[in-house]
Amino acid sequence: MTDSTTSPAAAPGLPFEQTEMHPQRWGSPDRAAALPESARGLVEMAFGVDERPALESPALPAPAIEPSLLDALRDLVGAEHVITDDETRRLRTRGKSTPDLIRARTGDLSDAPDAVVRPGGHADVVAVLAWAVEHHVAVVPFGGGTSVTGGLAARRDGYAGLVSLDLVRMKSLLAVDPVSMTATLEPGLRGPEAEALLAEHGLTLGHYPQSFEYASIGGFAATRSSGQSSAGYGRFDALVVGLTVATPTGDLTLGSAPANAAGPDLRQLLLGSEGAFGVITAVTVRVRKLPAVKLYEGWRWASFAEGAAAMRTLAQTGLLPTVIRLSDESETAINLARPEEIGGEAAGGCLMITGYEGEQAAVDAKRAAVTAVLEGLGGTALGEGPGEAWAHGRFNAPYLRDSMLDVGVLVETLETATFWSNMDTLYTSVKSALETSLGAGTIVLCHISHVYETGCSLYFTVATKEAEEPLAQWQAAKVAASDAMIAAGATITHHHAVGTDHKPWLAQEIGPVGVQVLRAVKAELDPTGILNPGVLIP
Amino acid sequence: MTDSTTSPAAAPGLPFEQTEMHPQRWGSPDRAAALPESARGLVEMAFGVDERPALESPALPAPAIEPSLLDALRDLVGAEHVITDDETRRLRTRGKSTPDLIRARTGDLSDAPDAVVRPGGHADVVAVLAWAVEHHVAVVPFGGGTSVTGGLAARRDGYAGLVSLDLVRMKSLLAVDPVSMTATLEPGLRGPEAEALLAEHGLTLGHYPQSFEYASIGGFAATRSSGQSSAGYGRFDALVVGLTVATPTGDLTLGSAPANAAGPDLRQLLLGSEGAFGVITAVTVRVRKLPAVKLYEGWRWASFAEGAAAMRTLAQTGLLPTVIRLSDESETAINLARPEEIGGEAAGGCLMITGYEGEQAAVDAKRAAVTAVLEGLGGTALGEGPGEAWAHGRFNAPYLRDSMLDVGVLVETLETATFWSNMDTLYTSVKSALETSLGAGTIVLCHISHVYETGCSLYFTVATKEAEEPLAQWQAAKVAASDAMIAAGATITHHHAVGTDHKPWLAQEIGPVGVQVLRAVKAELDPTGILNPGVLIP
Repeated sequence: MTDSTTSPAAAPGLPFEQTEMHPQRWGSPDRAAALPESARGLVEMAFGVDERPALESPALPAPAIEPSLLDALRDLVGAEHVITDDETRRLRTRGKSTPDLIRARTGDLSDAPDAVVRPGGHADVVAVLAWAVEHHVAVVPFGGGTSVTGGLAARRDGYAGLVSLDLVRMKSLLAVDPVSMTATLEPGLRGPEAEALLAEHGLTLGHYPQSFEYASIGGFAATRSSGQSSAGYGRFDALVVGLTVATPTGDLTLGSAPANAAGPDLRQLLLGSEGAFGVITAVTVRVRKLPAVKLYEGWRWASFAEGAAAMRTLAQTGLLPTVIRLSDESETAINLARPEEIGGEAAGGCLMITGYEGEQAAVDAKRAAVTAVLEGLGGTALGEGPGEAWAHGRFNAPYLRDSMLDVGVLVETLETATFWSNMDTLYTSVKSALETSLGAGTIVLCHISHVYETGCSLYFTVATKEAEEPLAQWQAAKVAASDAMIAAGATITHHHAVGTDHKPWLAQEIGPVGVQVLRAVKAELDPTGILNPGVLIP
Repeated sequence: MTDSTTSPAAAPGLPFEQTEMHPQRWGSPDRAAALPESARGLVEMAFGVDERPALESPALPAPAIEPSLLDALRDLVGAEHVITDDETRRLRTRGKSTPDLIRARTGDLSDAPDAVVRPGGHADVVAVLAWAVEHHVAVVPFGGGTSVTGGLAARRDGYAGLVSLDLVRMKSLLAVDPVSMTATLEPGLRGPEAEALLAEHGLTLGHYPQSFEYASIGGFAATRSSGQSSAGYGRFDALVVGLTVATPTGDLTLGSAPANAAGPDLRQLLLGSEGAFGVITAVTVRVRKLPAVKLYEGWRWASFAEGAAAMRTLAQTGLLPTVIRLSDESETAINLARPEEIGGEAAGGCLMITGYEGEQAAVDAKRAAVTAVLEGLGGTALGEGPGEAWAHGRFNAPYLRDSMLDVGVLVETLETATFWSNMDTLYTSVKSALETSLGAGTIVLCHISHVYETGCSLYFTVATKEAEEPLAQWQAAKVAASDAMIAAGATITHHHAVGTDHKPWLAQEIGPVGVQVLRAVKAELDPTGILNPGVLIP
């Protein structure tokens, strides 16, 4: 194993500058934009355009923690790493769900942390946790700040204060093992930073969720993230072979082998623990060779059902491409605003994207085999145009959401997963629940974003005219959709985690005994309950 | 989903009659045999032959439970399903490790259960657990009885009695979902029974550990079993998509989707729980189409290192066959007693077995790709002879162990796993620890039995002249080998579970906080500690 501690400052070639996100929008403030003219006509037609006033920086509540406690914290990690200015605290307030954005836009920053503390490594994290236990301060681990389920909106009542544990200084590639094809990463590395460091070794993680540009390694692990290339590279929890976790009870170091039978797999208990059991301070992941070739293309299917059946066939015959996703008729129709990209105006049907990454020969072989199957099942090849268009815009949807909010259109996403035989039921019932709750003029789009031998995930995008009380409007729709998922026997979330928003349905999904197990583990690892209170555990 | 409750009684075509195992040997009493003449010469030369007297049925301790308690149990499950005769109890005493066999051969049946109870389904299991909690009776779940790590040797002191919970009546295929390619199985089904039931639907599980002929579905799940075809079909814990578990605290039903982000994956906490957290009463697994073709062949490598490097290349380029295993020089040399099978007397080197299962075209394509890689790396193709020989004898090693014990030669196996970069260190140190502990004349063989992108498992077979005190002799060697595994940073077990034998090393492997987590979960699910006391939890 090469011990090659490097950090992104030393890594050339980051694809773009990593800035702080806008506190009231997704992503880089420089990339905020008005609704593109091409979309404006459609939006006008569908919802009407209700231009909102420009955003103002709302006032923050004053820090509600004893200053002497922060002095003690400064002694531990250095004064410059305990920050209380408004701007820093504002940027650590909640995540990026549409309700989060609406609250931030309307001036509600009541969940702001009292301070932001930036540990420099594992030992600092341990020290901060001990301080938090001693003084009963709530601690919210913060990586990329991209939660869309309230994972950063911890409860503060009953605590002496609430601090955001910002992992921004923990951005090293700690080790690379080119023989075992593993790498050990610190949790604060954002997606592009981790890729840039690995690329210096000719390696890639291959994990590209839509939040890739901002989300962090620690967050991927803590939320069981799944990337757009999951068919080829695997979900993040499948990529993890080892973890180091600091908990108030002590450290956990897990991962002595690729797989074993030494009792339950405790890695899978910490993956998905959302900062409620401990703070992940290092993650050892499988890595792959940087692909020589990346090729994306489009396919057209007569119906969502036919496209889904083709995906199932590929998954069950071991022929999955690196990327595979399928839009339903509605989502495809929206894309028809750009007809040149999906094969002409008369195209219709459903658009599938397939992508191949790897060595040229392997890509050629896989592509030929997949093409034969898809053609045999009635798919129409659309060439690389739609694939390239998808790849080019793959991280941009959240920016579009902001532009829609700017003109009074509420846009939000939610997702679930189930077994293949249940997919149609789930699709119909969630779509119907959303449409019924939000009423006429609501647009519900869906795509299959991740596939397995036994089932798939469904990712819904909803757009509707913002009501007088948009938070209540969305909350009712969210409840209806979530109830429909559980009633269908599906999961409340395939890759967005539980946070605070999904807790009632998690409780239904795993049942009372499952909840008791989570509580027992929480009580053991975090007996005074300082870690992300109110998050994850029903 | 087809609800197709069927049980093996209705299933034709079981590959052989499922009998009870011999209480002092592995497997069917009908298949017990003297050491084959072909092997006897080798054994004579290596160890000397010390013919032991024929085995006698040792006496059992009388049941040490209040008869009135058993009457209460009879009221719950029916009188005919609570059994106390000597023969039944003898067959539920411990598992099949070499120390277990030595104890049984020398008349020590002190771990015999007081009674054997046979629940007819989930509700019966729940009732038995409630009875056990009420009367503080220890309960040992029993599937195939094939544990080799003391998983059936529960502690009984402090309890009002100890009963074996024999799942022999729970042998139904509860449901088949041919769209999602899943099947729901009861835990008492042995490997061949499950395969026979699935074959009626044209399906297979593809899970073939060496214990396949006797081990059960529940046991596979409870011990995170790994089969000889793991490269193609996956480890058992990777095959499980859902579980139903009866615990003293209540039922757990897990598995709402192929994968999700709804908190930690609690399935992975119950897989590997070895009957200490609950009783698995149903398992939903991925299934595959019955393969049209099964083809096994041999390859020769100049050295273990070269063969291992070739396996690593296949794993890291996504080209694994269904079966792949590699014997070291010593294990290959033992096979040379049958030179016709591995390519002639002058062969030497290391024998690799590759196997392909599936549709003809897929087998052909995979085989061609693998062959090109192996030839490119210097492997010599040996044709199907060695592959067929391996496939033919793949479940027979435990019978040979009995024949060796009959002539005073102690044979035992142990296994571990690590990352590729650490494999050579692990191999050398475990081999050396065994040879040093057991002294001159000891033979240590090894093969790589399971491979992953990031690492592999090492499976050791040890043969040595039985000492005056064989239990102490083996215990010292086991300690030395286990210490070497942990010192090398490897796992104490890749696929044999923890039982009672591996507990000290599990504690080192997962550390004190990991142990506290296991204890917390145990306390939550089994607060009075009736389930398999002394097993798994350090």
